[in-house]
Amino acid sequence: MYYYLTVRQFIRSLKNLDAILEKATRQAEARKFDVNNFCATRLFPDMLPFVAQIRIACDTAKGTAANLAGVEAPRHEDNETTMADLRGRIAKCVAYLETLRAADFERTKPDTLIKHRPDKIIPADEYLFARQIPNFFFHVTTAYALLRMQGVPLGKMDFLNGAQSVAA
Amino acid sequence: MYYYLTVRQFIRSLKNLDAILEKATRQAEARKFDVNNFCATRLFPDMLPFVAQIRIACDTAKGTAANLAGVEAPRHEDNETTMADLRGRIAKCVAYLETLRAADFERTKPDTLIKHRPDKIIPADEYLFARQIPNFFFHVTTAYALLRMQGVPLGKMDFLNGAQSVAA
Repeated sequence: MYYYLTVRQFIRSLKNLDAILEKATRQAEARKFDVNNFCATRLFPDMLPFVAQIRIACDTAKGTAANLAGVEAPRHEDNETTMADLRGRIAKCVAYLETLRAADFERTKPDTLIKHRPDKIIPADEYLFARQIPNFFFHVTTAYALLRMQGVPLGKMDFLNGAQSVAA
Repeated sequence: MYYYLTVRQFIRSLKNLDAILEKATRQAEARKFDVNNFCATRLFPDMLPFVAQIRIACDTAKGTAANLAGVEAPRHEDNETTMADLRGRIAKCVAYLETLRAADFERTKPDTLIKHRPDKIIPADEYLFARQIPNFFFHVTTAYALLRMQGVPLGKMDFLNGAQSVAA
């Protein structure tokens, strides 16, 4: 079932994101600056900072999975101030996603109505493909961009890593 | 079938991207600078410029659709130098995607092998969810980021626009 499949893809992307944060940490060590200086960076003064990009990516993945499985997601407090804290946030999110099984998504059909805000409902396919997947990658890519533009040596394979092709 | 569905989502996102380029054009007019100055901007000197972000977003959408439908995508030359050219590139891509019908994707199953490089094959689901969807949103988000960080008044709804929820 593709709901399960797409949630598994969030896990892969979040692990890639963690590896990107690891590269940022190594870059800070090599250049001898505090890696936590990245946490407050923004693309523009009225845009959310790096910490929020990570939190929203995690919460989008977690909330999507929980909503499509018809369960309540665990609450994770927004209290991270360091890169290590943010990696902990990603780890908690991945650990939760890994508790879910294909069977948890079997009752959900493409037109099952999902309550995604207290006053909004949306069919499952529209929820996943039109809102949640784009939103998830928006925040992961923005986090990547913030590090990339400040000199962390990243390439697109850091973002895409883990897709499995087979030699022809 | 979700292959058709996800290709339709690429159309929606490309139309949002075109509206974002329109906002950049209006911003340039209001501030009296040449909107084409955005075309060569980069997040970092060794990263691809804005024009390439748009081309790759388009080619990812077009190539994904064609590969999943088992047809050959039309070739679009990489010769854009202006914002108007880039909007033309998006329009050509959308026009092609709109020729495809749900029936074109019916023969493709989750494990159908897709040739995505001359020497690489990958099962359809892995191709779509692990490579092409993340890659598409990576480039759309990077284009958004390049404009956003240079003062174009954008918000996330410019990126997500068109997802249809229903009042509860």
